[in-house]
Amino acid sequence: MTATETASRRNGVDTATLFATLDAVKAQPEIARFQFRATNRWISGTHNRGTINSFYGAGQENTRPADFTFDADHPPVLVGGDNGPTPAEHLLHALAACLTSGLANIAAARGIDLEEVTSTVEGDINLLGILGLDPEVRNGYEAIRVTFHVKGDAEAERLKALVEQSRNRSAVYDVITHGVPVSIDVATA
Amino acid sequence: MTATETASRRNGVDTATLFATLDAVKAQPEIARFQFRATNRWISGTHNRGTINSFYGAGQENTRPADFTFDADHPPVLVGGDNGPTPAEHLLHALAACLTSGLANIAAARGIDLEEVTSTVEGDINLLGILGLDPEVRNGYEAIRVTFHVKGDAEAERLKALVEQSRNRSAVYDVITHGVPVSIDVATA
Repeated sequence: MTATETASRRNGVDTATLFATLDAVKAQPEIARFQFRATNRWISGTHNRGTINSFYGAGQENTRPADFTFDADHPPVLVGGDNGPTPAEHLLHALAACLTSGLANIAAARGIDLEEVTSTVEGDINLLGILGLDPEVRNGYEAIRVTFHVKGDAEAERLKALVEQSRNRSAVYDVITHGVPVSIDVATA
Repeated sequence: MTATETASRRNGVDTATLFATLDAVKAQPEIARFQFRATNRWISGTHNRGTINSFYGAGQENTRPADFTFDADHPPVLVGGDNGPTPAEHLLHALAACLTSGLANIAAARGIDLEEVTSTVEGDINLLGILGLDPEVRNGYEAIRVTFHVKGDAEAERLKALVEQSRNRSAVYDVITHGVPVSIDVATA
């Protein structure tokens, strides 16, 4: 971001609108209820395609001009065609993205100009679980590690505090660390 | 899939290789230890880009021929530029994809030809949590619902059982319902 950015736009964040949005939600808390959605269609083998578009929020249905589509697959070593990342990798991406989006908003709100933010997420998984070969091994990741590199116009402790506050307010971090009830229905007609 | 598929290839799944892989892992369980990774780079505001490529697994480093990249952003109603789905939507996609990939493998292993598999995932989230406006509201989804439509050459109960077994063996379902420890480190140099 450049030094010409005004106080109302920092790190690409329109902070005036950000604060106005917060005020609007304070005045009318029911507009904070959102429902996000994803649909998926099986293609072949482990290859399938997810589509993301509409969501409910701010009191109304919202539709994007075009769908976002994302393929998932297994790599050859897991008997797939490598037409996309594994679903478990998509999950790691969601975590890094959530922490990063939050960090940029928080930095803007605190008046800190960011120069560069990169991160790496690693997830350790023992496939004896999902392969059904060891009932003592869980299906999911055993541990996930995130490493951030943050450069900006503030001292190290203030930059580190951005990551900490982003973790404190991250939807995906909360889901991945604490879990959420998931119901599954099936129609076969 | 067509009726010309042989018993060793069903639903696009190479079942001979699938069973051979299972045998290989039974004989050498340490090859089941995988590490998946995602990296992320902040672009501007809530817009950032995830890159997925290498992973460790089957006893070695694995690299794809090209990176998979995925943008994330917030929609305008959440003060973003809508350059990609929200991270919370990417998470829903990961769940649908994982259940679908597993389902196709399980159907192939059980000798069931699939005709069509689609699913929708909905997640309810109250943004009072991530906005820091109500300490009683969690940051993440309050509930997630998945609805599958499965068509194939088996009776309804056997098709429903595919979804149930996929849930029983899904890495992403396990993470999202039970949680995983996540550590976060920050470098500012």
